[in-house]
Amino acid sequence: MSTIITSPINVLAISGGIGGAKLALGLDRILAEDKLAVLCNTGDDFEHLGLHISPDVDTVMYTLAGIANPETGWGREGETWSFMRSLEALGGETWFQLGDKDLAIHVERTRRLRHGEALTSIVADFALRLGVQARLLPMSDQPVRTMVKTDEGTLPFQRYFVERRCVPSVQGFSFDGVDEAHPPDGLTQLLQSNHLEAIIICPSNPFVSIDPILAVPGMREALSASPVPVVAVSPIIGGKAVKGPTAKMMIELGMPTTSKAVAEHYHGLLSGFVLDESDADQVKSFDLPCLVTPTLMNSEADKRRLASEVLDFARDLAT
Amino acid sequence: MSTIITSPINVLAISGGIGGAKLALGLDRILAEDKLAVLCNTGDDFEHLGLHISPDVDTVMYTLAGIANPETGWGREGETWSFMRSLEALGGETWFQLGDKDLAIHVERTRRLRHGEALTSIVADFALRLGVQARLLPMSDQPVRTMVKTDEGTLPFQRYFVERRCVPSVQGFSFDGVDEAHPPDGLTQLLQSNHLEAIIICPSNPFVSIDPILAVPGMREALSASPVPVVAVSPIIGGKAVKGPTAKMMIELGMPTTSKAVAEHYHGLLSGFVLDESDADQVKSFDLPCLVTPTLMNSEADKRRLASEVLDFARDLAT
Repeated sequence: MSTIITSPINVLAISGGIGGAKLALGLDRILAEDKLAVLCNTGDDFEHLGLHISPDVDTVMYTLAGIANPETGWGREGETWSFMRSLEALGGETWFQLGDKDLAIHVERTRRLRHGEALTSIVADFALRLGVQARLLPMSDQPVRTMVKTDEGTLPFQRYFVERRCVPSVQGFSFDGVDEAHPPDGLTQLLQSNHLEAIIICPSNPFVSIDPILAVPGMREALSASPVPVVAVSPIIGGKAVKGPTAKMMIELGMPTTSKAVAEHYHGLLSGFVLDESDADQVKSFDLPCLVTPTLMNSEADKRRLASEVLDFARDLAT
Repeated sequence: MSTIITSPINVLAISGGIGGAKLALGLDRILAEDKLAVLCNTGDDFEHLGLHISPDVDTVMYTLAGIANPETGWGREGETWSFMRSLEALGGETWFQLGDKDLAIHVERTRRLRHGEALTSIVADFALRLGVQARLLPMSDQPVRTMVKTDEGTLPFQRYFVERRCVPSVQGFSFDGVDEAHPPDGLTQLLQSNHLEAIIICPSNPFVSIDPILAVPGMREALSASPVPVVAVSPIIGGKAVKGPTAKMMIELGMPTTSKAVAEHYHGLLSGFVLDESDADQVKSFDLPCLVTPTLMNSEADKRRLASEVLDFARDLAT
């Protein structure tokens, strides 16, 4: 499979899992076919049961393919659980839930990786087969593993996130293997293309979804060098994260749980920032152009509307 | 997990998959707990989708655990197929069917093998967890792969058996890796134990179920050196195999499709032979003690009755 971007991409979204995938879905549904690329976090990838699991890539892929589980945000709709029950009876590890349908992507990805195929190529093929229009780009073909420094010691991300349910207090993060990683083939070309209009940082966790992507050597520079606006959408609404440990992490790291703090975290990278209407009073403290709008995305209509507003905002910034 | 035989085994059954598992079930159900060991073929093991599949070991294990699919003879009862459907949508190979429940044993076995655990140990643990009373012994911890020489070239067993549905004409067999294989830990001890009463070769395919076991260096000698009777049950009834390609192979190899030919195939190893009542007229041509009895096993009662008769026959031969 070729991983070269063959049609002109207008928008690059940068995304983690659930929250990011919502905005990616909105962008996908309002853009013409083949106009969106989504650069996905692989820092929370891990080996489990001998299988290569890529939670964020899969969440974005399933979401855009319209086969994601709408209740959990991860995994597949109409899932069955025969494998997990059977595994439990055999004494296997069950702290990480793998549905029967979902399992196919892990088994087949692992098989193809072992045969020497690049993750980027495998993901492109799966996305095509699942009917995803957008180009999904894992942040790197080299393994990068987010490690969470906590008061219980340093934990691999999924042990912290799933097994320990984000209970340990966070002290910092590191990205094992990142020094040997580089951005996926085609990304530099995409960022330099004069078809590109905007780079959107989705409302994902800044520390464990977006930072691993930005930590890939050359990634931040390549994004900064792009002439198009870089707009981030805040994952914080009214001092809280919609889902996940973002706010808890900010508190533990000694940061205010504000959209302003998120924007400052992305210091130097942003052309504009999108924050929820409930945080409108923070706007005056920003030295960046801001869009204030409802950012909570429940329905697909919410996702399309926010995507549309964010794109219009980015286009305005470009002029 | 220890693989040492800790309690006195009375009977060693030697078995392939479906047909052998039926008699093994009968033996298991009439013997007291921990009195049966089943030495299982691993010549049809193979790597598929990056997973280590052990079809015959699993068939015997599922059968003795009472969770086998009664319709197919392989796989698990009440199986679901979400994984296969999902794999197909991703472009994965679907010629070998893996149910969602069944998949757990392949994933977990593969994981443990990759961690360096011996197959014997893994199988012992799985059997314990699934409530199997008998001791299941894979024929070797070293990989042996049955290769089928056919008029279409040499095919790995599962490609011949499942993918090509036994259509190619058979010219012979070889067992890749067998020179480096040796019998499982504990087997020699079991064969020399004065608790052992009988060795039963189940009505499995002689060429691809029993021969791979006998081909393990030292196996045939160890069985021959045991002072107890070795009794084989014919897989041929009225010139036909109950299931599978045994009779077709015999024809292609230029052998008569008779129980007599099966007995001759095991030349030098047997103390007695069990053949179906429909083949009673062959008995006069045998130079071995024979038991003539109905050997078709449909119900569990059939399996228990045949097992009981075969054991009585073997015990008679010992006196």
